[in-house]
Amino acid sequence: MSLMMNKAGLTAFLQKSFPQVADDFQIDTVLETELSVCLTPQDRHLRPGGTVSGPTLFGLADVSIYLAILSRIGPKALAVTTNCSIDFMRKPAADRDLIAVARLLKLGRVLAVGDTMIYSDGMPDPVARATLTYSIPPKQA
Amino acid sequence: MSLMMNKAGLTAFLQKSFPQVADDFQIDTVLETELSVCLTPQDRHLRPGGTVSGPTLFGLADVSIYLAILSRIGPKALAVTTNCSIDFMRKPAADRDLIAVARLLKLGRVLAVGDTMIYSDGMPDPVARATLTYSIPPKQA
Amino acid sequence: MSLMMNKAGLTAFLQKSFPQVADDFQIDTVLETELSVCLTPQDRHLRPGGTVSGPTLFGLADVSIYLAILSRIGPKALAVTTNCSIDFMRKPAADRDLIAVARLLKLGRVLAVGDTMIYSDGMPDPVARATLTYSIPPKQA
Amino acid sequence: MSLMMNKAGLTAFLQKSFPQVADDFQIDTVLETELSVCLTPQDRHLRPGGTVSGPTLFGLADVSIYLAILSRIGPKALAVTTNCSIDFMRKPAADRDLIAVARLLKLGRVLAVGDTMIYSDGMPDPVARATLTYSIPPKQA
Repeated sequence: MSLMMNKAGLTAFLQKSFPQVADDFQIDTVLETELSVCLTPQDRHLRPGGTVSGPTLFGLADVSIYLAILSRIGPKALAVTTNCSIDFMRKPAADRDLIAVARLLKLGRVLAVGDTMIYSDGMPDPVARATLTYSIPPKQA
Repeated sequence: MSLMMNKAGLTAFLQKSFPQVADDFQIDTVLETELSVCLTPQDRHLRPGGTVSGPTLFGLADVSIYLAILSRIGPKALAVTTNCSIDFMRKPAADRDLIAVARLLKLGRVLAVGDTMIYSDGMPDPVARATLTYSIPPKQA
Repeated sequence: MSLMMNKAGLTAFLQKSFPQVADDFQIDTVLETELSVCLTPQDRHLRPGGTVSGPTLFGLADVSIYLAILSRIGPKALAVTTNCSIDFMRKPAADRDLIAVARLLKLGRVLAVGDTMIYSDGMPDPVARATLTYSIPPKQA
Repeated sequence: MSLMMNKAGLTAFLQKSFPQVADDFQIDTVLETELSVCLTPQDRHLRPGGTVSGPTLFGLADVSIYLAILSRIGPKALAVTTNCSIDFMRKPAADRDLIAVARLLKLGRVLAVGDTMIYSDGMPDPVARATLTYSIPPKQA
C-alpha cells in the first residue's frame, strides 16, 4: 500500500506523457488514501450560462483516478479506462477552480476501480461524482 | 413521435448555442428512430499512441443524445445531463471519423434517456457505447 | 438537513410497505450524514462457490439509499429508482453479514442521488459499491 | 463468431449450475447476434403497486448477458460480473412476462461487455435497459 510515485513524479509524468492536457491539471495532494487534482477553468472549458463543460468534468475525473493508480503501480504501466459512470449533480461555477478528490477502491491484477468527487472550490456540495474502471495490462516479460 | 427539428434546424441551433464546439460536430442523419453525428478528429482530440481522448468520446456521446432529444422537443427546452455510463471497448482510430448513432429510449415529462453507439468509420465493431439521462426543465408559464 | 424519520420509524415503514423483503434487512444506524443497513445471508441469497448473489447486493444497495432518502423527506414520498451503477469488486463471504453504508449526495426537488459501500462484516475492503438515482414525485396538492 | 452452446445446452447448464434460480428463467432464443430470456413474475418478484422488484430486473439483465457470453465461450468458463449500469424507465406490469433481449458488444480476452433491453410482454417500450461487464478468468493450463 505504499506509494510508487509522489507529487513531483506524477506531475513530471503527466507533462511528458500527456503534453496536450497536462497544463490543465495541477496535482494538489498525493496520499496513500486519496489524491486530489485541481483544474482552473479556461475559456475552452466553459459553456453558455457560466458553467463548465461535461467533457471537462469527465476529463478531470478520469485523470484524478488515473493518477491515483499510477501513484501505486508506477509510471510504466499503461492503464486504460474501460468504464465510467458519472453523475452531474450541481452546476459548477465557471469562475472557481474545480477540485477532484479521488480514491482507489480496488487495485487488482487486471482491473482497478476508483471513485472521485468533484467540487467547485469553496462550495460544500459536490458538483459531480464518478466511478471509473481501468484495465491494467499484464507485465511484459 | 414526429420531429420538431430537422438536420438544418439542429445544425443552426448547435452553431448558435454552442459556438465553442459546434465545428467539431457534423450532424449526418436525423430520423424519428435515430440520429447520427460525426466528428473528424483534430490534433486537440488525440492522445499518444494514435488514439482519441476519452473526453472527446464523452462529448460526442453527449451531443448525439442531446440533439436527439431536441429533435423531438424543439429548441426552447434546456435539457441538462444528469448521468452518464460509458464503456470504452476498443481503441478508436486517430485517422478515421468517429460516428455516434443515438436513439431515445424514454422521453418523459422530467427525464429523458438515450443510448448511443460510437464507431470509427469503416470498422464494424463499436469503440464505445454510452447511456445518458437528461433532466428536462418544466415548461415556463 | 435534519432527520424526518429515525431508526424505529424507518424500520416500521419498511415492515409495512415492503413486507416481502423487510425481514432481510436490519437498519443499524441512522445519522444525518449516513445510514447503514445489514443483511444476514440466507440460503436464498447464496450462489455456488460460497458467495452472495448479485441481485441480493443490488437490493441491499437500493434499500440503503432509499431509506437514507426517506430519513430526510419522510414516509409519504414515493421515490422511484431510475438509475443504478454498481461495481462488484470482491467476492462477498456467504457466512458473514453484509453491511451497506449509504450517504446522500444530492436531495433535489425532482432527483436524489446517493452512493453506498457494501462490506462483508469484519473485512476491510468493500465487496461492492453503487450509486443510485431516484425520481421524487411532485407533492400532491 | 459461431455458437459454442445452443438453447438446450444453456438451459441444462443453468439448471445444473444455478439451481436456486434456474426455474425463474426460460431461454427463448439463442442466436449469434442476440439471446432472449423470459421471466414469468411470481409473488416473490412483486412489489406493492402491482410492479416487479428492482432486484428481479437486475437478475434478469444479468442472466441474459451471462448466457449470451456462455453461448460463445462454452460452459467451462466462469465469467464474473464486475460492473452494471441499469436504467429503470417504465413500470413493469406484474401480470405479464418480462423478456430480456441481450447482445454482446465485446468479447475480449479478459473482459466481455453486453447490453440488454427488458420489455413487458406485449408492450412496445422497454421497462429497463442495462449494460454489464464480465471478467473472464484466464484459461487453466
